[in-house]
Amino acid sequence: MSLLVVGSLALDTIETPFGKAQETLGGSAVYISTAASYFAPQVRLVGVVGGDFPEKAMSFLGERNIDLEGLQRIESGKTFRWSGKYHYDLNMRDTLFTKLNVFEKFDPKIPEAYRKSKYVCLGNIDPVLQRKVLDQIEKPKLVVGDTMNFWIEGKHDELMKTMKHFDVLIINDSEARLLTQEPNLIRAGKKIIGMGPKILIIKKGEHGAILLTENTIFSAPAYPMENINDPTGAGDSFAGGFIGWLEKSDDISDENLKKAVIYGSAMASFCVEKFGVDGLNDLTHLKIQDRFRSFRDLSKF
Amino acid sequence: MSLLVVGSLALDTIETPFGKAQETLGGSAVYISTAASYFAPQVRLVGVVGGDFPEKAMSFLGERNIDLEGLQRIESGKTFRWSGKYHYDLNMRDTLFTKLNVFEKFDPKIPEAYRKSKYVCLGNIDPVLQRKVLDQIEKPKLVVGDTMNFWIEGKHDELMKTMKHFDVLIINDSEARLLTQEPNLIRAGKKIIGMGPKILIIKKGEHGAILLTENTIFSAPAYPMENINDPTGAGDSFAGGFIGWLEKSDDISDENLKKAVIYGSAMASFCVEKFGVDGLNDLTHLKIQDRFRSFRDLSKF
Repeated sequence: MSLLVVGSLALDTIETPFGKAQETLGGSAVYISTAASYFAPQVRLVGVVGGDFPEKAMSFLGERNIDLEGLQRIESGKTFRWSGKYHYDLNMRDTLFTKLNVFEKFDPKIPEAYRKSKYVCLGNIDPVLQRKVLDQIEKPKLVVGDTMNFWIEGKHDELMKTMKHFDVLIINDSEARLLTQEPNLIRAGKKIIGMGPKILIIKKGEHGAILLTENTIFSAPAYPMENINDPTGAGDSFAGGFIGWLEKSDDISDENLKKAVIYGSAMASFCVEKFGVDGLNDLTHLKIQDRFRSFRDLSKF
Repeated sequence: MSLLVVGSLALDTIETPFGKAQETLGGSAVYISTAASYFAPQVRLVGVVGGDFPEKAMSFLGERNIDLEGLQRIESGKTFRWSGKYHYDLNMRDTLFTKLNVFEKFDPKIPEAYRKSKYVCLGNIDPVLQRKVLDQIEKPKLVVGDTMNFWIEGKHDELMKTMKHFDVLIINDSEARLLTQEPNLIRAGKKIIGMGPKILIIKKGEHGAILLTENTIFSAPAYPMENINDPTGAGDSFAGGFIGWLEKSDDISDENLKKAVIYGSAMASFCVEKFGVDGLNDLTHLKIQDRFRSFRDLSKF
């Protein structure tokens, strides 16, 4: 099996009520790949960084056995930077700045060796680029895509075209409502299933997630977190755990999709315990299995 | 076994995007008793109505086999009236008017025959009155109490005193945050457990509910509702299903509390399908069991 991840690599400056991190490794492709790397033996990453991308960040990815053949490095440019500040209740954040830098002209080129990837995860990038990636892949078994308000509002038609190529769409509840103009989440979900993806995951933050397929509705609980230090990357860690498990098990039945949602939720819960990608560092299979079981205990009756 | 319910009886005028109801039977004691009546063989209701309380409403309660010995009827007064309008997304409502009428001077008197009730459910009324009820009960096995923002802010000290007599507190997520000044729901829950009730249920509307005891955290999913017509009474129907199941099974173990939360959620889901108490009319045990099983299917992995 094989898993390809395309998205952003960034240096994030984050402030939460519980601390600060300066120019720490971030970006959707980083969180997705790192979370997935605990399941999939080798994750292939496609993205772009500038000449200032730190050696330390490279080794972090290398240590997770992430294949970096598809990582473009533009020596003359600077890496994408994002800065955000979270409020007291952690559900709201202000973006302090976004400097796209080399990411502004990102032109995803899929190396020859990656073109037969069976599992593909498209982080939250321009839907035109997402389609450009898919044009370079030969018959993937499962394409998982993410998007956000910015593209739903700003590139609606392109997004609608791209969504037809997604097998799975992962979005949050407010995005699902925005995309469908439907306040009822279940109706919104069913509308989205009609837009292309046959599998939909609606993330609800502290309220867990919902999986919708043509035949199933599954409600995944949220892990009861008392100590959330930094919510950055939670959604991407979810996506990584989700597709990582699917790649490892190579089973996209409804029953296994439910498990994948729980593995996604588990990775998101680890992510938010620490700053940046620290929560995804030094995990063990035992720890991940323990958390998976906690989710079962939490919802069993 | 025996179940006592104390709370309001009202005539509600409700507007939602899906319809209107004029002076329809409502009030916390009505929803709680009606939902509980599908489990508990005879529910004892204590409340007050005016001379204008319709015969039809009396027969509705009588047909549900609800014992009305404790219902005070003040012929010279008018029944409590409430009117509310729900917005497009049904999560927000405006109160158009509240006319307390006879409810303003409600002085709960527990008939002799009710004083040994083992299960007691106190609807959302003044915490001073809730304590007054409890003073008249001999050693109940389980006291379930509800409250709301109005008392949390307006009668905080009295509520704190009353809460020490609750075994179970049922509130919604914003109330839990308000009561504890803690944005993290799990921390908020643990703080509340320290305030008196050993069992806490946090209702999260479309996101389900959380049960917290000293040894357990349980996350109950929400039933995936596509057709919510009127959210009025959902919380009280939850409380009724919850305590009704506990009374019927006479088992307050953590495992059975989880089932009670699901029965509560099931009754709430029936309630919101129709206007006023109509959703709680003509249910069958088979229908309730079917919905219970749907909740299991929804969360099993």
